[in-house]
Amino acid sequence: MRSLIDILDLSPSELDELMDTAVEIERHPEKFRAACAGKKIATLFFEPSTRTRMSFEAAMFELGGNVLSMSEASSSTAKGESVADTAKVISCYADIIAIRHPKEGAALVAAKNARVPVINAGDGGHCHPTQTLADLLTIRREKGRFEFLTVGLCGDLKYGRTVHSLIGALSRFEGIRFVLISPGELSLPEYVKTEVIEKNGLSFSEVSSLEEALPELDLLYMTRIQRERFEDPEEYERLKDSYILTPEKLSLAREDCCVLHPLPRVNEISVAVDDDPRACYFKQVQNGKLMRMALILKLLKEAEKPESEASRGEFLLEGKRCRNPRCILQTEQELPALLKKTAGGVCRCVWCESAIE
Amino acid sequence: MRSLIDILDLSPSELDELMDTAVEIERHPEKFRAACAGKKIATLFFEPSTRTRMSFEAAMFELGGNVLSMSEASSSTAKGESVADTAKVISCYADIIAIRHPKEGAALVAAKNARVPVINAGDGGHCHPTQTLADLLTIRREKGRFEFLTVGLCGDLKYGRTVHSLIGALSRFEGIRFVLISPGELSLPEYVKTEVIEKNGLSFSEVSSLEEALPELDLLYMTRIQRERFEDPEEYERLKDSYILTPEKLSLAREDCCVLHPLPRVNEISVAVDDDPRACYFKQVQNGKLMRMALILKLLKEAEKPESEASRGEFLLEGKRCRNPRCILQTEQELPALLKKTAGGVCRCVWCESAIE
Amino acid sequence: MRSLIDILDLSPSELDELMDTAVEIERHPEKFRAACAGKKIATLFFEPSTRTRMSFEAAMFELGGNVLSMSEASSSTAKGESVADTAKVISCYADIIAIRHPKEGAALVAAKNARVPVINAGDGGHCHPTQTLADLLTIRREKGRFEFLTVGLCGDLKYGRTVHSLIGALSRFEGIRFVLISPGELSLPEYVKTEVIEKNGLSFSEVSSLEEALPELDLLYMTRIQRERFEDPEEYERLKDSYILTPEKLSLAREDCCVLHPLPRVNEISVAVDDDPRACYFKQVQNGKLMRMALILKLLKEAEKPESEASRGEFLLEGKRCRNPRCILQTEQELPALLKKTAGGVCRCVWCESAIE
Repeated sequence: MRSLIDILDLSPSELDELMDTAVEIERHPEKFRAACAGKKIATLFFEPSTRTRMSFEAAMFELGGNVLSMSEASSSTAKGESVADTAKVISCYADIIAIRHPKEGAALVAAKNARVPVINAGDGGHCHPTQTLADLLTIRREKGRFEFLTVGLCGDLKYGRTVHSLIGALSRFEGIRFVLISPGELSLPEYVKTEVIEKNGLSFSEVSSLEEALPELDLLYMTRIQRERFEDPEEYERLKDSYILTPEKLSLAREDCCVLHPLPRVNEISVAVDDDPRACYFKQVQNGKLMRMALILKLLKEAEKPESEASRGEFLLEGKRCRNPRCILQTEQELPALLKKTAGGVCRCVWCESAIE
Repeated sequence: MRSLIDILDLSPSELDELMDTAVEIERHPEKFRAACAGKKIATLFFEPSTRTRMSFEAAMFELGGNVLSMSEASSSTAKGESVADTAKVISCYADIIAIRHPKEGAALVAAKNARVPVINAGDGGHCHPTQTLADLLTIRREKGRFEFLTVGLCGDLKYGRTVHSLIGALSRFEGIRFVLISPGELSLPEYVKTEVIEKNGLSFSEVSSLEEALPELDLLYMTRIQRERFEDPEEYERLKDSYILTPEKLSLAREDCCVLHPLPRVNEISVAVDDDPRACYFKQVQNGKLMRMALILKLLKEAEKPESEASRGEFLLEGKRCRNPRCILQTEQELPALLKKTAGGVCRCVWCESAIE
Repeated sequence: MRSLIDILDLSPSELDELMDTAVEIERHPEKFRAACAGKKIATLFFEPSTRTRMSFEAAMFELGGNVLSMSEASSSTAKGESVADTAKVISCYADIIAIRHPKEGAALVAAKNARVPVINAGDGGHCHPTQTLADLLTIRREKGRFEFLTVGLCGDLKYGRTVHSLIGALSRFEGIRFVLISPGELSLPEYVKTEVIEKNGLSFSEVSSLEEALPELDLLYMTRIQRERFEDPEEYERLKDSYILTPEKLSLAREDCCVLHPLPRVNEISVAVDDDPRACYFKQVQNGKLMRMALILKLLKEAEKPESEASRGEFLLEGKRCRNPRCILQTEQELPALLKKTAGGVCRCVWCESAIE
């Protein structure tokens, strides 16, 4: 069964195809109004995220389908049944599942056990591929291309999963240059620099000043800086304002620069920026819904094909256990401690993809 | 974009039109079964209210539309995104929004930022206009008129927003006489008496005894008295039973008196009263659904018209900030502290409508 | 108005009819796709149970109907309105109600007050009849009959409402033999043995070892053993593993034995058992949805018939009050303390059915 766990599960040509469908849906919504008639999506949100959940639900409704909705405080998941059992049960009720879960790897566990396609709507700090789909369509529509872009990434580059995912997706294109704008405490992890950016022959620079970086950017991807991420609260207080995008700072940017943000924002972009034509973060929301529609259509179509489950061959059972406390392996009943070797020769947990020594 | 924030946003002739539609819907539901096909309502309840939420959702389903549902404990709204951002985002997903929020003025903020019509389903203690729509249709159906009615209002007249809203709506009709039945601590605020009742040339009397008032009433509107409202708990204990409607007390009322209650009740009306033909509070529920259907139809129809946004001219930016701790101004990111002058010459916060000195 | 509160509300021939419909639905889903067009089910879950709620909702969607969904933490029910009022209100919004509530008897209170059919989706430890419907269809499909089966019931037989309900339903068939497998602390209550099993002329044996019982079983019904049920935590630790079904233990069972579990499981069945053809607990999920579809159809159809409310005659108002702290009588506003005499001559509370001395 084809699922979407990581943005890299989709080839560049599949991404193109999804974006074409999304644009076609926006132009001719009437053609798709009954495309999923009689189908149901289950939105299993073990961690509340109204925005993402409603995006999936609106997507399904606009395709003529129905919605089984679950939104739970994450505290109650501890005592509940396993993700695997939930996936098996919900397969009796829904034709496709979108799952958000606080544990890394939970969506993959669901996909391995469901009899229907599974979409990862966020598994802890690990992946959130449909946000990246929204980002990519917005870039294509605003910039007209993916190649030869200077892409500024600003804010929390250490923990921001949307940033990592976007870097991964853009690293497959030619001539991308990343400008990494963050305080030292929140700089991009080494392995993303070496295993993703450099391995793909792309370049990056690191700066700590948003003003300095702005003039050269084709694209600015803003993210939130959270107080909790800093060891020293004074350091946070000293730094936070420098990463807030205001009209003054934006005046330094090119006329055709395009500002993205995965939302929700707290205050890292001033409301006064919203009316600037370069502010594209609300367009991202619309694009996110369209891409989710295209994705649901694609996965439901592939689900009708006979299956080849060859991919399981890549996993090794090695006896070493992943120790990541946020990995689904630590809570799921009888989940095997599978490992895989990545291209770079690193051994990683199959579920959360953290490196195993 | 036309929204409904306050019952007074609707003219008497618009109210008539809504009530006519509501009755027509009840008579010929089949005519309306596909009226909103392909449309979606988002019910954004930042404070749970199952009854009101389900009324909107049932209304939309009976019009052939779909529902994006959100119900959150109010505690979690503190850390979330701004109401303005939520309204912009949900505008990508839904064709109309019903919002309940603990902060006064939140629905207006949503309406100013949404690209779709917004219905106020309760903004703190401020307004709850669709409850008043339910009340009005019930009065019209039970009494056959709005003019020359003696209307008893019983319970918490100080904080009860449904009472204030009903007084506002009825004050536009001729010959209404209000009988205000409450303990002294919970009597109707001065400004409602002067600015609303007297300004419209209507009269009122104040009594503390429900038995005394009952014989002369055409209509009795009951509300709940909450222990928390009393500074002195003993005073509450001493008083509470006198405002409970029992069959014995109801026997003092006219044969054609009509008892309303916005529900939920706790114990202020005895269950033994439910079977009395004068008890109309469950009819109110049905009428509320019908009025919400009529309202959704009206607002979606008006949303198709080209817009004239002239009304913004009424606002003054004066530099004085509203200090009401329950006002949305205190929590919303970069919300301007707008003021307006009301007919009585009082300067009020645009958002929560509390008076500014 | 016909409702389903207890599995025994359905006669054996009605059960047969429901099972026939369920199988027909699975074979020809297209015939039922618009059976409930324009109808709504309200799923009122005053206690979260995602699995059961989604089963009802999926059932309604597959019949072409719509869903009004409520899922609340049980803590918030204390301060809310009465179950009776909720039932009256929701009758304005929905055509049928599925209710789960922590208080025993709550579903019956809802049924007595609603103007639409009510399905008990679990009322505290009292009844959960649609789980039994799932169990029965699974037994019929897997074993081909209900008569002359040796039925093992394993785990918490003292508090397990699904076990009591299944025993009640199976006790109406000939030649059933129950094998009760539990620790002494959690053995089947005396009144079930005498009033249900023996009164129907059936036999049972009690054993404490799962291994010992397994070879003779046609059917094994597993349930969860909860630590909280034991007075002595060491006793729990000593016993818990003996009631976990593993592949080793299952190897002692017949080839045609059939393993059921109401789910969710925690760890009382090893994941390694899931692929065994005798593991039928995920089939139960599918069967549960089908039976709920059949039930919704049946109750909506009966709701169209004129009513005969003769059954109320059986209740006696005796002045004795039920003292069960989990009974809805303790919290519901002005609920009469009704009693009834059961066939065995025992006087029971009408609401929670606990014995009154």
